[in-house]
Amino acid sequence: MNHCPQALTLTRQIMQELSATAGIQPTRLAIPVGISNHHLHLSLADMETLFGYGATLTRMKAVKQPGQFAADQTVTLHGPKGDIAGVRVLGPLRTTTQIEISIADSFVLGVKAPVRMSGELQESAGIEILGPRGRVQAKRGTIVAWRHLHISPQQAAQHKLSDGMEIDIEAAGPRGGIMRHVRVRVSEDAVLELHIDREEANGFGLHNGDIVHRWQQAC
Amino acid sequence: MNHCPQALTLTRQIMQELSATAGIQPTRLAIPVGISNHHLHLSLADMETLFGYGATLTRMKAVKQPGQFAADQTVTLHGPKGDIAGVRVLGPLRTTTQIEISIADSFVLGVKAPVRMSGELQESAGIEILGPRGRVQAKRGTIVAWRHLHISPQQAAQHKLSDGMEIDIEAAGPRGGIMRHVRVRVSEDAVLELHIDREEANGFGLHNGDIVHRWQQAC
Repeated sequence: MNHCPQALTLTRQIMQELSATAGIQPTRLAIPVGISNHHLHLSLADMETLFGYGATLTRMKAVKQPGQFAADQTVTLHGPKGDIAGVRVLGPLRTTTQIEISIADSFVLGVKAPVRMSGELQESAGIEILGPRGRVQAKRGTIVAWRHLHISPQQAAQHKLSDGMEIDIEAAGPRGGIMRHVRVRVSEDAVLELHIDREEANGFGLHNGDIVHRWQQAC
Repeated sequence: MNHCPQALTLTRQIMQELSATAGIQPTRLAIPVGISNHHLHLSLADMETLFGYGATLTRMKAVKQPGQFAADQTVTLHGPKGDIAGVRVLGPLRTTTQIEISIADSFVLGVKAPVRMSGELQESAGIEILGPRGRVQAKRGTIVAWRHLHISPQQAAQHKLSDGMEIDIEAAGPRGGIMRHVRVRVSEDAVLELHIDREEANGFGLHNGDIVHRWQQAC
């Protein structure tokens, strides 16, 4: 026996009364999807080891977040179990080298990469990086990206979101559902975007630019 | 302003009273996860074309659903954009050949495979199948598997599930969330199992044998 229908009907009545009292309309945050393939960010020292002293990253194309770009430069990741070639470098340079792969990639390479937010590299996996001019043995820095939302301070304030909080995101379609633990990243000039990797996208049947929504239980 | 806390507190009180009145306890269905890699099922005619007249599928290992097995035999899928080698045949033979790939595979091969339940092959994609003794040009039969739940008639009755209905499944963990549209497949001798593909598993951070639960909103 399922009491949901009665309970939900009552809940809606309660919600309507509470909303009427407060005189507000709930807003629904619509977010475009951005899908990341495996890639890496390089420190100046590692970039020069891989591509030669005095080399610079050259822009192949801009990515959606302002200032960042996909570089012409690619590397090969060399793991205990296998290699992945043609892994693209994302610019600009960073203070620390960071390699972002999928869970499937981690099996191909034979490395245990934790699911982590960018920059949270404690106890992350090591990997060897092969470039045209040299190789880097990264002792750590290999992660599977934690799904996250890029948003500007203005939009964050409008939707009562703050940097570091986790929200739920709902996707429609035959593989639709709800993603929990989507980390909010508030930054100046951020373009509103849900960043997920290719496996998350395919698992939910999502394509670049698809619109997903913030989900709040019974609201 | 978010009214969820008040509404949900009230909902729980309502649920408790209704449950108390009916004198029931809600049961929560716990389901082991089974992850499928790309594979195919063959008709007798196609099997003989690929492996030779009079050939038979030989058992490499049993799979969880009774009577089915992974065969020693593998094929190469040949698409307009690329090949995938070592794709395993699942036995026993079926009346119709069916090829089950991931969305990532569909890009490698260059075929548009719809997300479909097993056997629902109308307007599914064609593919060329290469075997050691011949090749089959399948005009259709290539699909991305629709996530589904295998359950016996007894367990289905116990949990008020019927063949063909769709339920929601909740997964825990950093990539946790809710999968909607999980199709229920009731069959004699079925072993309780949620069948998802590798991309769905990695998208939700799930491993073979992990336990997930049926999810019912506000219940």
